[in-house]
This record gives sequence, C-alpha cells and structure tokens, in this order.
Amino acid sequence: MTGKVYLVGAGPGDPELLTLKALRVLRSAEAVLHDDLVAPEILQLIPPTAQICNVGKRCGKKKIQQGEINSLMVALASAGLRVVRLKGGDPLIFGRAGEEIESLRAGNISFEIVPGVTTALGAAAAAQIPLTHRRAASALVLITAHLSPKGASKRGAVDQDASDWSNFVASGATLVIYMPGQNYAYIAKKLTSAGLANNTPCAIISRATTKYQRTHRTTVGDLHRAPQLVAPTLLVVGEVVGMADPAALALEFAMPELGQRKNGSLPAAVFKAIHPPPPLAADEESVS
Amino acid sequence: MTGKVYLVGAGPGDPELLTLKALRVLRSAEAVLHDDLVAPEILQLIPPTAQICNVGKRCGKKKIQQGEINSLMVALASAGLRVVRLKGGDPLIFGRAGEEIESLRAGNISFEIVPGVTTALGAAAAAQIPLTHRRAASALVLITAHLSPKGASKRGAVDQDASDWSNFVASGATLVIYMPGQNYAYIAKKLTSAGLANNTPCAIISRATTKYQRTHRTTVGDLHRAPQLVAPTLLVVGEVVGMADPAALALEFAMPELGQRKNGSLPAAVFKAIHPPPPLAADEESVS
Repeated sequence: MTGKVYLVGAGPGDPELLTLKALRVLRSAEAVLHDDLVAPEILQLIPPTAQICNVGKRCGKKKIQQGEINSLMVALASAGLRVVRLKGGDPLIFGRAGEEIESLRAGNISFEIVPGVTTALGAAAAAQIPLTHRRAASALVLITAHLSPKGASKRGAVDQDASDWSNFVASGATLVIYMPGQNYAYIAKKLTSAGLANNTPCAIISRATTKYQRTHRTTVGDLHRAPQLVAPTLLVVGEVVGMADPAALALEFAMPELGQRKNGSLPAAVFKAIHPPPPLAADEESVS
Repeated sequence: MTGKVYLVGAGPGDPELLTLKALRVLRSAEAVLHDDLVAPEILQLIPPTAQICNVGKRCGKKKIQQGEINSLMVALASAGLRVVRLKGGDPLIFGRAGEEIESLRAGNISFEIVPGVTTALGAAAAAQIPLTHRRAASALVLITAHLSPKGASKRGAVDQDASDWSNFVASGATLVIYMPGQNYAYIAKKLTSAGLANNTPCAIISRATTKYQRTHRTTVGDLHRAPQLVAPTLLVVGEVVGMADPAALALEFAMPELGQRKNGSLPAAVFKAIHPPPPLAADEESVS
C-alpha cells in the first residue's frame, strides 16, 4: 500500500508554537525529512522508530539538492511509509513546497499540507509589532531577499529587480523581508532606491520566538550600522515598527516565559499533556 | 495584584490548528473575550470557571464597539484576572490588535501576544495553493477589502484607493484578499482596473479549514459569475492558483480528516492528550 506525505509547518521557532495537528501528525510519522531550522524540542517528539533525515539547506550551503528531497519523499511514500516533510514556519511561504507538491503529484503520491505559524507572525508577536493598523498600514507584504549562491556572489545579497520593491514601497504596506542576509547596507540602499524615507522605522529580529531571540530597532537610514545578528533573521519595515514596545525591542530582550520552562523547553503543563506518546491516531491502523 | 492579557490567535477555523501555547493559555484563562469566528470546539477548551464574553463584530454588524472591548480588557486585568482576548487567525493581521495594544499600554496592563495560523495559510494549505513559487510569485501580499459600514453603503464594498492595488498587481505578487465581501463584480473590476489580466486564476475559499469549507476556482474575468459563498471568505489571486489541485478546489470539497473525528471535532489522539484538563501551568499560582 502506498504511504502518504504530510508537508508540515513547524512554526517560527518556539516549540510551543507547533499546532495540535502538526503534533499529531509528527507523533505518528514513520519517516521525517526536516529542515535545519526546526527546534530540537520538536524533533524530540518524533517516535524513536521513525527514520529521520536532516535535509536542511541554510545560508546557501546546500547539504542536499531540492530534487533529491523530492525523490526521497516519493520513494519513502512509495514504500508505504507515512512521511512528514517538516519545515520551519509555514510550508507554503518561501518553503519550496510548490516544487515538492509537483513531484508528489507526478509520483501519484497522496499528500496533505499542515499549515504553521509563519516566522513573520511569530517575530511580530514577540516584538509586539502590529503588522497592519488602521492608521498606519492596510496591507502586509512578505518578500525575500534570499539569493542563489551564484547570484549572491555577483550582486551582494539580493537578486530581485528593484522595481518590485518600488511597488511595495509606493503602496504604504508593512514589508517583512525574509532572509535579508547580513549586507544591511545593500538592503537599506535597495529600500531607499525604491522610495522609502530614511526615517522609516525598521527592526531586525534574529531567531524569533526562541530563547536566543535578539532584536534591533533602527531606521532605514541607520540600518547599515546595525549589529550583525545571528541567522535566521527577519527585517520588518514600516511605520508599525514605531508602535512596537521599546522594551520588547531592546537588543538583549529575552522571551519572558522561556526562563520558567523545564523538561526541554516545553512548559510543564504542555509537556505533561503530550508525554508519554499518546495512543495511535484515529486514522492509523491498529492491531488490537 | 494586576492580571495579564493574552492576545491569542485561534487559527483559521480547524480547532486542531490551535497552537500548543494558545491551548495552554486558554486552559488557564479566568476571562475570555472572543470573536465570532472562533470554533465552538476551541471555546469548549475554556475552563468552566472562566467568564466568557463574545465580543464579535461580523459583516459590519457591530455587537460591541472596539473601545468597549479595550475598556473591558483593561478592567478585567485590573481586577487581577488572567484575560484571553481570542481572535480568529493571527491577532496582528487585520485584527485591530494595534488598537488593543495601545489601550493596554495606556492602562499599564501587562500583556503577551500568542501568534496563530493566519487564515490565508490555512486556506492555501487546504486548497493546496503554494503562496510563493520560484517560477510564479516571489512575494505574498495580504490585503483587505473590508469596509466600515458607512463607507460600504456609499461605495459598494471597498474603501481603498485603487492605486494601492495597482502597485501590488504590478509587482506580480500573489494577492490574498481578506474579507472580500460578496460584491465579486466590484472586486473583479478593481483588480482589472489595477492592471490584472482577465485570465488570471483566482479562488474564493469559504470557511477555510472547517468541515463547512467550500471553494470555487475561477478567473478574474469570470469572478463576477461566482456563486455567493458563506462568509467568512477569502480570495486568492495569482498564477499560483493555477497550481492548486483541481480536486482540492472542487466546490463540494470537504476536509478528508474531519469525517473521522469524534469528541467534538478534535481527533481522538489529540483529544485524549489534552483532556482531562492538565495540571496548573508552571507560571500559575498553586495552593499545594
């Protein structure tokens, strides 16, 4: 019998931001292909009997090609396994899920997508930035400055046409730039070339929602002087950043609840509720 | 002692798309102010001892003013309660959280934001639409066509300047329109006036991720002929809609897993894991 593939979003970093559905699917996985950015506490939820493979690609250093990931998913499901393809954030935003879906359809593999909290939402919540606001921003734009390694070496950090950003800037929307890289001077120039004022507030959020989260608030004009924060980072640009709590945006800001955690970093109540492993899910076969 | 307010995202509709953190916070709530769109199965997770108030505003029919919600949150927290402000989707996207945050700060009330899966991600997952794609869309734009009742009566269904949408259309991004209303002819005209081709694929998704989900795929040119689906709806516009699975976009599409659920609509394994109520959370007071 052919298996099934679940494309699952693991959320922005904090293991508690996993959904109940993602938890259920992960607890019944027979094979898991995961990205680098998935928290260790989440990987610990995978049954010990499951095959686990880190297929992460990070900062342009590819460990495994996208085509290989696609083939592996198809092969494992064809062998009858219940496969979880576990991605940071949400699978459908900058996660190459479109290409994986095409491979699964071509291989006639049944699949299901389990959405997750995308990193922009996790970061905004932690930094208390309303992404839309009646007085300041009626739209939200999610873009990426990530580049293929080849393009990166030629152009610095971004391979998009500057005219794309001009349109977004002209709209007055809040911009969230995924994978902005560390060439902040280049990003700042791209933003001002696109028409953004130098005094527009912006914030770099590093390792959002984890205990390692660091945030730096500045303006587009001063962005080039920002400290180099650890990847993964995210850049939020727009008037709404000015509405963030200064305390929540201090560089040494740490998540208030994380210090109280035991047993990995899941809070005690949640940890007790989900450990030890629950019985088989309703849609699994049972031998009893 | 002053209480605390949690601004919590309940996710797009499916109760299983609640996060573990939202579940934990909800289970320890002493007062809950919730929107109309939150699933009954999620409301059932609230402790029976908690005060519950539906502060929903839907389709312009306001039951309670935003200012009253803000005052209520501040009053309950000032009385020492642990208050959950429970919103559909994510609190920071089109949820008026910005205004609530301002009131909480003005009232010197401690608060925390718990992000959720925003409806666009839930709907895209259910309809298998990759929101970004290397070949088709390098950005995602979330906008709303919702109007104040006063503006709606004057102008049909939308109060935004058409030039805003022109910028988004020119960018080639995937557009997700929250609260598009049922005047599809008006929305279609606004999209074509902004420069979008008539043959651009689009999909209306009604009550995304619930057992009542209905989806209709069409093009911008034929959008005015679309059936009137039940609110809340969401309109996804862009080439990526053409990559959706036709079966997943059939009008009578129903979520495959929902039919197998018992005990409310949480699957058995998840239900057993979270019921009966877990012990007190680590950050709550204990009398023992």
